Amino acid sequence: MQHINVLLFDDYTSLDALGPLEVFSRLKQHYEIEYFSLYGGAVKSSVNSQILTRKLSEIKSHDILLVLGGFATRELINDEKFLSELRNLADMSKVVLSVCTGSVLLARAGVLKNKRATSNKSSWEFVTSASKEVEWMKPARWVKDGKFYTSSGVAAGIDMALGFVSEIHGLQIARDIAKLMEYIWNEDMNFDPFA
Amino acid sequence: MQHINVLLFDDYTSLDALGPLEVFSRLKQHYEIEYFSLYGGAVKSSVNSQILTRKLSEIKSHDILLVLGGFATRELINDEKFLSELRNLADMSKVVLSVCTGSVLLARAGVLKNKRATSNKSSWEFVTSASKEVEWMKPARWVKDGKFYTSSGVAAGIDMALGFVSEIHGLQIARDIAKLMEYIWNEDMNFDPFA
Repeated sequence: MQHINVLLFDDYTSLDALGPLEVFSRLKQHYEIEYFSLYGGAVKSSVNSQILTRKLSEIKSHDILLVLGGFATRELINDEKFLSELRNLADMSKVVLSVCTGSVLLARAGVLKNKRATSNKSSWEFVTSASKEVEWMKPARWVKDGKFYTSSGVAAGIDMALGFVSEIHGLQIARDIAKLMEYIWNEDMNFDPFA
Repeated sequence: MQHINVLLFDDYTSLDALGPLEVFSRLKQHYEIEYFSLYGGAVKSSVNSQILTRKLSEIKSHDILLVLGGFATRELINDEKFLSELRNLADMSKVVLSVCTGSVLLARAGVLKNKRATSNKSSWEFVTSASKEVEWMKPARWVKDGKFYTSSGVAAGIDMALGFVSEIHGLQIARDIAKLMEYIWNEDMNFDPFA
């Protein structure tokens, strides 16, 4: 069983998290999803939902870390406490997935140095100017470099999650999940209609 | 300002809710999203998240009701208390949107009698045999009949929400939102690759 640890913060983009997680929830025998935040408690999203979270110290196993984007990233890229905790989490995790502007948080935490990564195309200037030590890829629906998987904006996170599942569990399983979700999967990580 | 009242129940399919809501969250000047359940409190989803909800009696304005699907619908179609509350909500609301097997709940609540509607194609037998008084449409990505908008499975809810936005606010606004979400919108309600 692999633990997926979702790192939430106030004003994160809801679908950044819930898109990929819908994919993983179809493989309950392999993945256990849990929600964390710096201080625990209820965290508010872009869709006015409040999800209950635990403190980072309660993470059971640092298998897969999911990092999201959202408008809050404009402030978080200068939040040393947050970035330091994120750096620790990313270092400890076996796999790190980011969606949308989640990658700029990883970049500012210093863990994407000289790595290939992508991000939301409508926030491209913000992302690339905030961190120049990353080899930012445009176009790219998602990018894999070592243990880091970074996706483009919001819906691209679903494509990346299916790509990850395909890599680990096989293409047919990923296609079956996309079908059950009635989602038209963009299977090609290099096909990016929004670049 | 239109209130979107999301009706949650334990074990609902997360993306059924969070897909359409991501669309509406991009029009914050027009829509206020709130979460409700029969008894209020934390409600657990298919992705192991716990979202805080209010009681139905706390709904401020019955503008738009969002009804979701999920495995829980197999039991809820026989839950008279739930169906009676859902009937009241649907009757009072100006617009009712359902995603996935949410439509079988509306059907069993008795509000889709002789109306055209659709649902998840992988649960088609369950849905159509549970309620024979509905004119079930297959293929259909989503269906509009009067104030009722019903969509096919999970991701189809995003297409329907964009279709609704297009109808109310214009095609360009809907396309702009899809672009910001980096979502390849299936604009044609009759194009259903999963039927």
